[in-house]
Order: sequence, then C-alpha cells, then structure tokens
Amino acid sequence: MTLPSSVRLFEMSPRDGLQNEPGTPVPTRTKIELIERLAKAGMSHIEAASFVSPKWVPQMGDASEVMTGISRHSGVVYSALTPNLKGLENALEAKADEVAVFGAASEAFSQKNINCSVSESLERFEPVLARARGAGLRVRGYVSCVLGCPYEGEIAPTKVAAVAKALYDMGCYEISLGDTIGVGTPLAAKRMIDAVSREVPMECLAAHFHDTYGQALANLYAVLEEGVSVIDASTAGLGGCPYAKGASGNVATEDVLYLLKGLGIETGIDLQAVIDTGYWITAELGRTPSSKVALAIGCRQ
Amino acid sequence: MTLPSSVRLFEMSPRDGLQNEPGTPVPTRTKIELIERLAKAGMSHIEAASFVSPKWVPQMGDASEVMTGISRHSGVVYSALTPNLKGLENALEAKADEVAVFGAASEAFSQKNINCSVSESLERFEPVLARARGAGLRVRGYVSCVLGCPYEGEIAPTKVAAVAKALYDMGCYEISLGDTIGVGTPLAAKRMIDAVSREVPMECLAAHFHDTYGQALANLYAVLEEGVSVIDASTAGLGGCPYAKGASGNVATEDVLYLLKGLGIETGIDLQAVIDTGYWITAELGRTPSSKVALAIGCRQ
Repeated sequence: MTLPSSVRLFEMSPRDGLQNEPGTPVPTRTKIELIERLAKAGMSHIEAASFVSPKWVPQMGDASEVMTGISRHSGVVYSALTPNLKGLENALEAKADEVAVFGAASEAFSQKNINCSVSESLERFEPVLARARGAGLRVRGYVSCVLGCPYEGEIAPTKVAAVAKALYDMGCYEISLGDTIGVGTPLAAKRMIDAVSREVPMECLAAHFHDTYGQALANLYAVLEEGVSVIDASTAGLGGCPYAKGASGNVATEDVLYLLKGLGIETGIDLQAVIDTGYWITAELGRTPSSKVALAIGCRQ
Repeated sequence: MTLPSSVRLFEMSPRDGLQNEPGTPVPTRTKIELIERLAKAGMSHIEAASFVSPKWVPQMGDASEVMTGISRHSGVVYSALTPNLKGLENALEAKADEVAVFGAASEAFSQKNINCSVSESLERFEPVLARARGAGLRVRGYVSCVLGCPYEGEIAPTKVAAVAKALYDMGCYEISLGDTIGVGTPLAAKRMIDAVSREVPMECLAAHFHDTYGQALANLYAVLEEGVSVIDASTAGLGGCPYAKGASGNVATEDVLYLLKGLGIETGIDLQAVIDTGYWITAELGRTPSSKVALAIGCRQ
C-alpha cells in the first residue's frame, strides 16, 4: 500500500483520442502540432498514430504522414498501433519508435471489434511480435474490457490475467489494461490488478481507465496503492465513448496530473502546458476540454 | 482500512444545489416536486431549504413555503440551514426536522462569506444551538474550506479539527466537512479526516466534497477507507462552483451511488430513480445533468 514516487504517463490523445472523435477527420498538420505541443509539455510517451485500415478507422488514414511529419524530441517515444504485419511494415517505414498490439479480455468484444476470437487474435500477433523483435522495436500490448464488456458484462480477473500473460510471454514489454467502457470501481480495479500481477510483473502493467462513469480517478488511486506506476490518459479527455452517446471516454490527462501532484508523485510534465494544449486542440474541434481541472484552472493563452 | 457496510447519503440538491444555480429563482412548486422525487427515490436525509436572508440568497427566499409545502415521508429527515436565531425561529415554524449551522476552517473565507471571524461565527451559533436543543431539534454543523480556501490556499488539518471540535462540543450531532472549492486530493483528504477524527468520533463525520477538479470520488474512496460513513451529494451535480465559472461544484449523487454500489456498500437508494430525477430537474433548469453516470446510463422516461 505504498504509492509510487513517480509515474510514467502514456499520452493517448493523438491516437485513442482523435480516432474516436466524431465528425470530419482532423487535418494532418493539426495532429502534428498536437504531438509537438505534448512533447514540449514534457510527455515522454505519445501514441501518435494507428496503422489500421483507413476503411475501418478513417481518422487514422494519415498515420504515415503524421509519423513522418513530426519532429522527434530527444527522450520522447512516439508509438503507433499496429494490428497486423501490414500495419507494422508501414509503421517501420514511418519510423515509429515503438508499436502496440490490441487484444481483448472479452470474447464477444473481440468478435465484434476485430472479428476473431481472443486466441485467434493472439495468434495473429505472433508474427507482428517476431517482425518487431527482428527490427529492434519494443511492443506494447493492450487488453481491452478488463473491468467489463459492453456485450458480456462482467469479466473475470483471471480471464484478464490470462490474456495479459499471453501478450507478455509473446514478448510485449508492457501490458496496458483498459477499462474500455469505464464501468469499473476501485475494488474491482484492485482485484483485477492483483490477478494480473500474479502473472505479469507489476512494473510491466499500465492502467488505461476510461471515465465514462466518473470513476477513473478513484480507480487510478486504488491501483496506484497496489503499485501500478504507468498510466494512460488523453489530454482534454479527447475520445468520447463510442458505447454511450454524449458520455466521456479516456480519462483526461489534466485530471490525472492534478491527482498525481496532490499525491506527491512525480511525472516531469507541465500541467499548465497540458491544459493550454487541451484548450487549443478542443478549439480546433469546436468544443471545450472534457477535463474538470482544465475548466477549473483555465487556459493561459 | 475496512470499508463501511452501509453509507448514509445526505442529499444537498434542494439547498446547496439550487442556491448556487445561476439564473432566475426556481419556482417553489418545482423545489417541492424535487424534494418529493428525492424522497421517493429512497433518500433518508434531504436538506430542503435555507433560512437565510433573501437579500443574500434570493434562490432560498421561499424557504418557508417549500418547507411547509412538502409532504413528509415517514423515515425521511427534512433539514434546513439556519445561520442565526431568526432563521431558526422560521425553520421551527415551518417544521424543519433538523437544522444546520455553517462555519469555516478559513479565517479569510469566514470574513468574506459571513463577515465575521471563525470564533465570532462559533459564538453566534451558541444561542442557535441552545434554542434548537430546547425545541428538541438536532443540529448539524458544516465546516467549509477543509481542504483549501479560495483566499488563503492550504488549510492545516489541525485548524479543521479545532472548528469541528468546537461545533461538536457545542452540541452538533454530526460535522459535515466541506471541500468547498474541490481542490483536495486523496492523501490530503485522509490526513484531514485523521486529524478531525482525533477530536470528533468518526461516526459523527460526514464528507462533503465538491468535484471542481474531478477529484471528489477519489477523495471519497480514500475517506471511506478511513471509516467515514456519511456522504453529502447533490443530484445531477446541481450547484456549480461560484469560485470557478463553468466548473462543477457538488459531487453528483448518481456518481457517488455508482461508486458505493461497486464497493458493495448499501445506501437504500434507487440509482435509476435518482438519475431520472436529475434529468427532470436539469430539464427544468434548461440543461443536462452534470453526472457522468447519468449521461452514461441515461434516463428511463
């Protein structure tokens, strides 16, 4: 029950954020500027793009242009989602620093989201992991629906642990555990982390919690107490929730940074710069930040 | 570090909620219907009105009409804020079941908010407490700014404990500890509760946390772990924050109920009925609920 002294934040807004924003695709130059501002705010890990078929995710159709268009800051890891070998080849060509694969803890979600069973999805990742290893790239593994599924409801922690272990054994250096629909509460989050950390070392786990039911910060506090020290978040809460119209998705980076600061946990990130970035990108999207901290503190510009 | 098996919720929306809603005063009949719906949803404690001067809080100018207009459900306590003897006499006449006095842990806030020092405010409550005791009414004590003040910044937990103890020694049966501007984080909340519970029994403490910085549920989870078992909340997050325009104030009852349900803590309240009430009252005010749970689950009607 000791809080970590520092937390590594994995910034999701350019990928998990923008890919779920409704409306017309965001211009490539805007995405590049967003990533630039995030790096300047002190982010060390930015998920910059997704090399999926533009047929499925039109918002990410310019992944190569984004990845080759950004200026690389020293000490910043620019990662990309690569669901298959083709995506990985494109990511390699665009010089992604790191790639990620995306599995689910729910059979029904896996079938509806990527059209195959959980074990089939894991098999498909094998060649991606092998090729990435050959190219010297680290691979992050995502597990979705770790605290509930929009189709199945509750998900057993042992199921999450099994998928996390499979990705870890396959060579993923870090497993990001996603409460995709934001239904979790603190004790459920703790139980899930406890189960997974029996199979994968705690230092290789990341919490990727959505705030759809307003529980994300409470859940993060609960798993910080368990020893989790990597958190995924999205500036301005970019992303929304595709499963509940008008509801929020990704937890806002600003709110996480405020929590961590209050707990005396270091991140190396400038909160006010992130707030300003959130106001800027949401103005580009024609709205205001979905971050209570941003609304309470306000923009500097 | 054991969570309570049940929590008593103190519903704030008719008073702390509506008194801070901008715009024209809410019609008396709407307030009465709100209180009726909250009682039907299973609320056992509802702060129904404030007997303050209508010059200062115009939204509460119809406190007597509200208090005498509501039908009383058996088992429901209808309370009223009574800052002075005149307010108390009016509350007695209107048959309030319980009354409350309002102090601050911050000198600057006390001066700006009620125009006297903290110790002067406590002296003014003495005759109110004595008269209430004579009339057989229980008195609740509020302490504001327990985790920070808009004028002074940080507030020492010992200062909060001293004011809480003074109110308790004066005869208040319960002390509601208010993070008036929502700036607290979980460790600060724990430290404050630890300090206060050395002076006042834990079972006589209530957490009254605002969600201005999105931290309220994390803070509530932290103090539930310490043994707090009474929580103040406002349906639909009614209230806003007078100190940060556009920011949120009272934590939403719906979000608290969802948290408690997930933690296996009983409240006796019907979450869906509260969600429906939140959609109804915010429609009356021309907006939507400031509750993520309400937005995610939606209204039944």
